[in-house]
Amino acid sequence: MLLRVVSLGFGNVGKALAQMLAEKETELKSAHGVEIVFVGAITRRHGAWTSSEGIRAEAVQRSGWPGGDLPHGATRFDGSTEELARLPHADVVLELTPLKPADGEPALTYIRAALSAGKHVVTANKGPIAHGLSALRKLAAERGRLLRFESTVMDGTPIFGMAQACLPATRIEGFSGVLNSTSNFVLGKMEAGASLDQAVAAAQAIGIAEENPAYDLDGWDASVKACALANALMGAELRPAEVQREGLGREAMVAAIASRAQGARIKQIVEVRRASDRIDARVRLESFAAGSLFGALSGMEAALKLRTDTLGELTLVEGEGGPAQTALGVMADLVAIARGRTVGPQ
Amino acid sequence: MLLRVVSLGFGNVGKALAQMLAEKETELKSAHGVEIVFVGAITRRHGAWTSSEGIRAEAVQRSGWPGGDLPHGATRFDGSTEELARLPHADVVLELTPLKPADGEPALTYIRAALSAGKHVVTANKGPIAHGLSALRKLAAERGRLLRFESTVMDGTPIFGMAQACLPATRIEGFSGVLNSTSNFVLGKMEAGASLDQAVAAAQAIGIAEENPAYDLDGWDASVKACALANALMGAELRPAEVQREGLGREAMVAAIASRAQGARIKQIVEVRRASDRIDARVRLESFAAGSLFGALSGMEAALKLRTDTLGELTLVEGEGGPAQTALGVMADLVAIARGRTVGPQ
Repeated sequence: MLLRVVSLGFGNVGKALAQMLAEKETELKSAHGVEIVFVGAITRRHGAWTSSEGIRAEAVQRSGWPGGDLPHGATRFDGSTEELARLPHADVVLELTPLKPADGEPALTYIRAALSAGKHVVTANKGPIAHGLSALRKLAAERGRLLRFESTVMDGTPIFGMAQACLPATRIEGFSGVLNSTSNFVLGKMEAGASLDQAVAAAQAIGIAEENPAYDLDGWDASVKACALANALMGAELRPAEVQREGLGREAMVAAIASRAQGARIKQIVEVRRASDRIDARVRLESFAAGSLFGALSGMEAALKLRTDTLGELTLVEGEGGPAQTALGVMADLVAIARGRTVGPQ
Repeated sequence: MLLRVVSLGFGNVGKALAQMLAEKETELKSAHGVEIVFVGAITRRHGAWTSSEGIRAEAVQRSGWPGGDLPHGATRFDGSTEELARLPHADVVLELTPLKPADGEPALTYIRAALSAGKHVVTANKGPIAHGLSALRKLAAERGRLLRFESTVMDGTPIFGMAQACLPATRIEGFSGVLNSTSNFVLGKMEAGASLDQAVAAAQAIGIAEENPAYDLDGWDASVKACALANALMGAELRPAEVQREGLGREAMVAAIASRAQGARIKQIVEVRRASDRIDARVRLESFAAGSLFGALSGMEAALKLRTDTLGELTLVEGEGGPAQTALGVMADLVAIARGRTVGPQ
């Protein structure tokens, strides 16, 4: 099966994906019968290209684009991102544009355009899943197309694919998670003796914190993830502004570190549960004893504990993540599309 | 899709499965299009029955069989287990007989009989997977039938299904795991101050240790699990006798507990890695610092850390397990068979 892919956005994840697809090209074909080529890509700074034939990942990677020249055989494309999302000979649109946490746009618009034009969609962007999953699922079902989004939470850690493929007829009652690596890295540094400013600077130095880290430290990133998870796994219609963010931010972090018990670890956690008539979501700082599972996580590890009615508690722990881990999730989604599967409504 | 199931063995897992299938009957049909009926079952003590129509899980459960009467509509069957495994109108054979760790028999024979007769097979028995997976896979492929075994390690925790569905073109380089709950429960009790004999008695009292607990404490259970995992996930041909069991058993446990560092936890672990020309597997006691992930596990929790070339490290942690968790794995395998999927060769 040949999948012709258009990529909206082509930053670190796009590059890591091209590398992984190039490395795994032979195995994808022999073990899964899947052949993947790029028929177009766009970035804000470097414009766009298309290819009628399709360009192998290895050739995209070798070109150095978007830093270097267009891949060999590519043609400059002057249309808009939405037009590219409707490219006639594409089978799948990869939506890898930057997150806008407040409303999930413009990714929502791109995904709608792609599904409406009959494309399957893979997104690594949690914004549209947090802000509009149920409408997107409806649109995908109407068009008979697949929408997958494994890499939106905990990089490519198999959360959504696992729930779909391995937990049939299972009700997810709730979950808790250590999902924001910036906050937890900063808290870890503070536990080791750094000041908040030093810890934030260290996070910035390794590229996991923005110049203004409030989006992470104030719990917005975790809130968007909470919504993506709750909407996909629990059928919620939760929006980031509805998540209760309590006792977060710089002062609260300093106070929590100062007042923690001997050996305890402070983590920024997400907690979601079914209440009688709604789904209740919170982000807050919590103290974990040294011998607890969440207390055992390093600053760069993430974890999600699901509470289910069939399997009891199941926890997934991701080692250090990054673009390569995100790329695995995208690749898994592409293979799943080739196999004709979807992350459908529960 | 109707699946007509024969169950070889019908103990705690069979009963838990019947209960789960009864509870989830409506959802399995509406969300997955799967209808499951029992067309036969056998236990060593209570004999066997068949049904040409098929009996719903709820009716099997209500009958109380194998403790009570035959389910309504069932007919006494006087043939052998192998004959039942070839029952003409069965689609799937559930192999739920007791484990024989030394050679995987008679389960291996039953599974071969079922596959040869054109049945799909689901087993919760790690013996045949540890002793004969590659030959069984070959036979299944020749017959165009599916063989699944999610519940053989860590109850129904989605290990094999996840690797298949969510980690395409991924090489599993190795893994370590805390997989034997009896040993780890006993070690936990000893850390809390119990003597070995007291701890073993406590494990026996809650039904997780045999009268002679050597099979668990000496690492045989973990060795069989190591083989099932290595054979399925890494393409190994490892047999339990080839697993290096080092410093295990009663005396070693007492010594490890006595000499452990402040706050450290002792766990019986499995460790498997690729060496240059073979796959190397060990079971041993190891000390984990209080702040480590394996050190944070309670005595009844199990964990498996996979090392992969695409996702880095991924750890699955199961909360307290039991027959219901095993039943979920069996149900997931049945649904996967209905969807036409297999855990095929990597």
